[in-house]
Amino acid sequence: MHTEINQQAPIAAIATPVGEGGIAVIRVSGKGAISKIQQCWQGKDLTAQQSHTVHFGKIIDKNRLPFDEVLVTLFHSPKSYTGEETVEISCHGGVLVTQKVLETILSLGIKPAVAGEFTQRAFLNGKLDLDQAEAVADLIHAKSLKAVDAAHQQLEGRLGDHVKKFRQQIIDATAMVELELDFIEEDVEFANKEQLQKLLEEVDGEISKLLETYETGRLVKDGVRTVLIGRPNAGKSTLLNTLVGNDRAIVTDIAGTTRDTIDVDWNYEGLLFKLIDTAGLRDTEDVVEAEGVKRSQKAFEQSDLVIYLKDLSHSFSNEERNEIGDFQKKAGETPFILIGTKADIELNEEWRTEFDLKISAAVGNNVEALKRLLKDRALENKHYDASSLLVTSTRHRDALTKAQEQVRAALQSLAQGMTGDFLSIDLRAALNELGAITGEITNEHILDSIFSRFCIGK
Amino acid sequence: MHTEINQQAPIAAIATPVGEGGIAVIRVSGKGAISKIQQCWQGKDLTAQQSHTVHFGKIIDKNRLPFDEVLVTLFHSPKSYTGEETVEISCHGGVLVTQKVLETILSLGIKPAVAGEFTQRAFLNGKLDLDQAEAVADLIHAKSLKAVDAAHQQLEGRLGDHVKKFRQQIIDATAMVELELDFIEEDVEFANKEQLQKLLEEVDGEISKLLETYETGRLVKDGVRTVLIGRPNAGKSTLLNTLVGNDRAIVTDIAGTTRDTIDVDWNYEGLLFKLIDTAGLRDTEDVVEAEGVKRSQKAFEQSDLVIYLKDLSHSFSNEERNEIGDFQKKAGETPFILIGTKADIELNEEWRTEFDLKISAAVGNNVEALKRLLKDRALENKHYDASSLLVTSTRHRDALTKAQEQVRAALQSLAQGMTGDFLSIDLRAALNELGAITGEITNEHILDSIFSRFCIGK
Repeated sequence: MHTEINQQAPIAAIATPVGEGGIAVIRVSGKGAISKIQQCWQGKDLTAQQSHTVHFGKIIDKNRLPFDEVLVTLFHSPKSYTGEETVEISCHGGVLVTQKVLETILSLGIKPAVAGEFTQRAFLNGKLDLDQAEAVADLIHAKSLKAVDAAHQQLEGRLGDHVKKFRQQIIDATAMVELELDFIEEDVEFANKEQLQKLLEEVDGEISKLLETYETGRLVKDGVRTVLIGRPNAGKSTLLNTLVGNDRAIVTDIAGTTRDTIDVDWNYEGLLFKLIDTAGLRDTEDVVEAEGVKRSQKAFEQSDLVIYLKDLSHSFSNEERNEIGDFQKKAGETPFILIGTKADIELNEEWRTEFDLKISAAVGNNVEALKRLLKDRALENKHYDASSLLVTSTRHRDALTKAQEQVRAALQSLAQGMTGDFLSIDLRAALNELGAITGEITNEHILDSIFSRFCIGK
Repeated sequence: MHTEINQQAPIAAIATPVGEGGIAVIRVSGKGAISKIQQCWQGKDLTAQQSHTVHFGKIIDKNRLPFDEVLVTLFHSPKSYTGEETVEISCHGGVLVTQKVLETILSLGIKPAVAGEFTQRAFLNGKLDLDQAEAVADLIHAKSLKAVDAAHQQLEGRLGDHVKKFRQQIIDATAMVELELDFIEEDVEFANKEQLQKLLEEVDGEISKLLETYETGRLVKDGVRTVLIGRPNAGKSTLLNTLVGNDRAIVTDIAGTTRDTIDVDWNYEGLLFKLIDTAGLRDTEDVVEAEGVKRSQKAFEQSDLVIYLKDLSHSFSNEERNEIGDFQKKAGETPFILIGTKADIELNEEWRTEFDLKISAAVGNNVEALKRLLKDRALENKHYDASSLLVTSTRHRDALTKAQEQVRAALQSLAQGMTGDFLSIDLRAALNELGAITGEITNEHILDSIFSRFCIGK
């Protein structure tokens, strides 16, 4: 993007997490940021220094008393994150001293930055496309290493590159159509219909390929919602504790102990599983427990992976067998794993084919095999690696879907021999949808909803 | 200090607090740090860049795939915090991405830094005196703005300057004494006894002045331990909630509700009060409550400020009046404030002289006056401002006290006409004590106990 830098009034915020640490960084960005900071600075003249240089000195309070030794890094416009003149102050990382540095800066008339305001300025100054700005938030909030990789691909502009290519192809198509329109009075047919069709079909196909990555992208970014179901006391909580490795769920021997769903984040080989330990699924008169059963049902319906646990130390009633069959049917496309628990006996022939795995979580037997099975089933038929580009955001998926619908509408119009003005409307709508992804076309409402996801200081 | 820089093998740690933030900083310090980081870096050649410059680029993982965009700041030895070659990597502040940057760096064979290791290296390389290093930890852990100021004074080396001046004076005195010793065979008396006495008396007086600041220093650094006592249901919890402004202590109408001591940090005008809400002080058969009463007694004995609350909606029994008298006596030098609560009646003449203040915390009446009273009484007879030098550490107080004892012993020896070798022993002991403050004289044990107070990454 080639946007002119528009330096706004300076803003400031603590950019590092809140808490005690070795150092904390306060970021100040905007027109005249350096000369403002010079006012609370004891050290060499900052306004006379080059960009990308670091200087040692002291911050002085309103009584001109120094209260912390800091390092100040200077960035001249446009060579900064925001594109604006920027100062980063690295001070001692105490909660109060950091607060005092910020308050001192704000007392100079610099406004506190709101959530995402630095990145929003970076976007407005063309330093980042909108999808890249979203990737910054994804990177910070990433809950798994695969999510880090996916966010980084997007931050590098790979999604944007695809989208821009589609846009360029559609712009070419639109030009062909509109050139014809310009000469319509003369009844000249410029556009090569076949060429146009081929171009749009290519875009259609490419968008399809990108959209196919969304299911994996969602699992990678948000985690695999894995629901543990089974009869009371089937060993769900024990299994969860074994996987996660601590005592997040309280395990007792009383059937029906787990009354609410318990969600635990568990990372395995870079992939996040959101383990949901459900209440038992038995009929109950207990109001609290009935509510738990209801939530378990809901969790089941929204899951990406279902683990049904069957206590093998009890015999297998026909009723339970039917119940499992029902769940399996209801799960539909969602991978369904049937696990036998608590048994150190050999499975008989019939059971062996039925169960995916037999474990004894209390002693760790087969637990590693289970972990691997969970990962394999969660990502089955989903091929990708760290460098794959994934669509991870519903906003991008929706925009791509709508753009594709418009491209298909244009193809249909073309097939039906409609005039160029119809095609032009469809193609321009597709362009708008694609432009919304990278932020070439946007509005206040979208920007607000995107940047409010950021933390203050980013 | 003029110490030669001894560059050790590089170490690395996350230097910012753990959590989600805009940015996180990873610090790497040691011999060859820059060329090591070059190995996981995509961007310009870092080894060819100047000190105190900042560079944009990417961190690449062991598969040589970039996974984050970062800013790298370079510091050449000796111009860094540690005195060693140092790299600071400012990456996106997500928990996982920061972790991955650190892990990538450690995979290059760089060791993870232990708590305080950077500052310890800075001390060993003469970048900081030991008292300044301690001030870094104090600054980070400061719980009030006054504590920030006190730590900063120490960080600036003001305590060290005093101590070094004392040392120089004692070294001068020792030289006078030892010169005499060298010529003792010749029976020449070089030392001007009067001059020597004057010098040592001056040092004695100056150390006294410094030691007098310790009581204030302790209150400023650790906070004013303020204990709230009174009969059950006298309104202690209500008052605490009013001061702190939230519902940290659960207030109910049942006498004896507060069974344990509840400690709450409350900052007022830069000063930290550690408010301790005690269990009631009545005799009780209840075991749990009896334990609470015992703890209240202990909190009372260790307090810096006592607030006794009397419920004015109940009449004033002779027994209670005696009880208050007892507490006041037991408090001794500790400021004791008598507050009447829950009364909207006018105090009669007799009561008015007895009570320091009458408040109705539930409606906020007189609460501001109480806050001011607490601060005035906590710091009464203690004059200091933001630029005052305070001794805040027991280690420094103890060393100063011992040094003073040795100086006084020398003065006594001098008065008794003892020979120079006796004086010399005392004076050299004083020098050792003073040298331990700034770290000119130290040992492994002291260093370990000091630097273990630091967080990792500092």
